[in-house]
Amino acid sequence: MVVAEVKIKLKKGVADPEGANTKKTLELLGFDVADVKAVKVFEIHLGTDDREDAQKKVEEMCQKLLANPVIHEYSITFS
Amino acid sequence: MVVAEVKIKLKKGVADPEGANTKKTLELLGFDVADVKAVKVFEIHLGTDDREDAQKKVEEMCQKLLANPVIHEYSITFS
Repeated sequence: MVVAEVKIKLKKGVADPEGANTKKTLELLGFDVADVKAVKVFEIHLGTDDREDAQKKVEEMCQKLLANPVIHEYSITFS
Repeated sequence: MVVAEVKIKLKKGVADPEGANTKKTLELLGFDVADVKAVKVFEIHLGTDDREDAQKKVEEMCQKLLANPVIHEYSITFS
């Protein structure tokens, strides 16, 4: 079984209210934080054992469902 | 500047509705998926350059704000 880690980040310039609010709260708690970015990760356990096939399938999943190309960029790693 | 990546996962046995729904939808789209887990990641850019100090601070952030010890487990990596 292949496990893919899909990391979905907001593109540069897209507002990240979750990150901004987390930063604000950490600062209120007294931490010295320059920036916080919120990232979404999906760990996908695939039925296939073929790594190349898996890469293709996961790319397709990102395009069809997981990421919004207008605001997101994604990266896929396997473990 | 040190950048910490805090990965916040649900503990084993805790329901993961986001992962479950993502799995269901991927299956409806025709993908062969064994399991999907939703993970939250915060990329924290710290004011300090001291790696050891950063590790301590980020641990504290997790305990005070980012993770709920009842349902979450977290891991911290630096880049």
